[in-house]
Amino acid sequence: MAPAYKLTYFPVKALAEPIRFLLSYGKIEFEDFRFERENWPEIKPHMPFAYQSIAICRYLAKKVKLAGANDLEDLEIDAIVDTINDLRLKIAVYGYETDEAMKETRKKPLFDETIPYYLERIEAIVKKNNGHLAVGKLTWADFYFVALLDYLNFMIKKNLIADYPNLQVLQKNVLNLPGIKEWVAKRPVTEA
Amino acid sequence: MAPAYKLTYFPVKALAEPIRFLLSYGKIEFEDFRFERENWPEIKPHMPFAYQSIAICRYLAKKVKLAGANDLEDLEIDAIVDTINDLRLKIAVYGYETDEAMKETRKKPLFDETIPYYLERIEAIVKKNNGHLAVGKLTWADFYFVALLDYLNFMIKKNLIADYPNLQVLQKNVLNLPGIKEWVAKRPVTEA
Repeated sequence: MAPAYKLTYFPVKALAEPIRFLLSYGKIEFEDFRFERENWPEIKPHMPFAYQSIAICRYLAKKVKLAGANDLEDLEIDAIVDTINDLRLKIAVYGYETDEAMKETRKKPLFDETIPYYLERIEAIVKKNNGHLAVGKLTWADFYFVALLDYLNFMIKKNLIADYPNLQVLQKNVLNLPGIKEWVAKRPVTEA
Repeated sequence: MAPAYKLTYFPVKALAEPIRFLLSYGKIEFEDFRFERENWPEIKPHMPFAYQSIAICRYLAKKVKLAGANDLEDLEIDAIVDTINDLRLKIAVYGYETDEAMKETRKKPLFDETIPYYLERIEAIVKKNNGHLAVGKLTWADFYFVALLDYLNFMIKKNLIADYPNLQVLQKNVLNLPGIKEWVAKRPVTEA
């Protein structure tokens, strides 16, 4: 039987990787369909919108029991996920800048202000939160952050969490989870 | 008794307005605390992060019965809300640009490509979806869009939905809902 889910994305981790983590963790079979960037113009018209990766993660998290236990827990999870996404967008503005002079201008505020602002706060949350990003236990917020890390690191050309020991432990713990460990071992090797 | 919710935000509609719509619709009392922009540096350190407006909307939507009836409906709602938020971010990059030459450069792609790309698709969704943005009925996605409109219009200095009759009907319907109608009549008059 064909897998119930077909994940269509560029041949990278990036925004699809949190979805792949959730499917792998839940032992939900999926077709990992990767198309080449040159075929995107052909595929794009068939997508009403680029489907929303965070919305898909939230949906799958309920299926694999990584959502909150109640509405207030979901609020805490959603808020930190959207915060990580805000950081991702700020990094992307720098990472995708093609004008080298402009990129250089954006560099200092990003590395000296934005990234420490977010990372110090995220580190403190994980420290006081039993090693997790939300509600003191493993949730899809942890998956979202850890699965995005390679992509974020690729954009800034350094390890975002190098100075944050609690985030390093979180990363290690997620990458060692059953399902995730197997997925990471078998996934295609890509930079982003 | 003091209201259970205190909403702290700048003295504008902007990202707080969808939250105010949901509270008003649900007849949930709230303190509408508006601080002046000059006091933000003083308030900011007391906020671990700028709390996430969409996460708050999703939480309140469950309370006032404007969320989906099941996980799949919530996925559809979440996806369109995040799409509207993507459009909002693209408009904001233009709207908040302080370099006039750069702003002029951003203008044509935004008005000729980005906005029509999103609006034509959103209009088509509402048309075939019983006048709503998701799942064929009133949900918090409708509130999110309509409540943001003044803010979006303020950033582009025109009516975003001027050419989209189905979106105009949606706006009219939401603004006529009990709770919303009263809120709009009594809220402070602000540009954004």
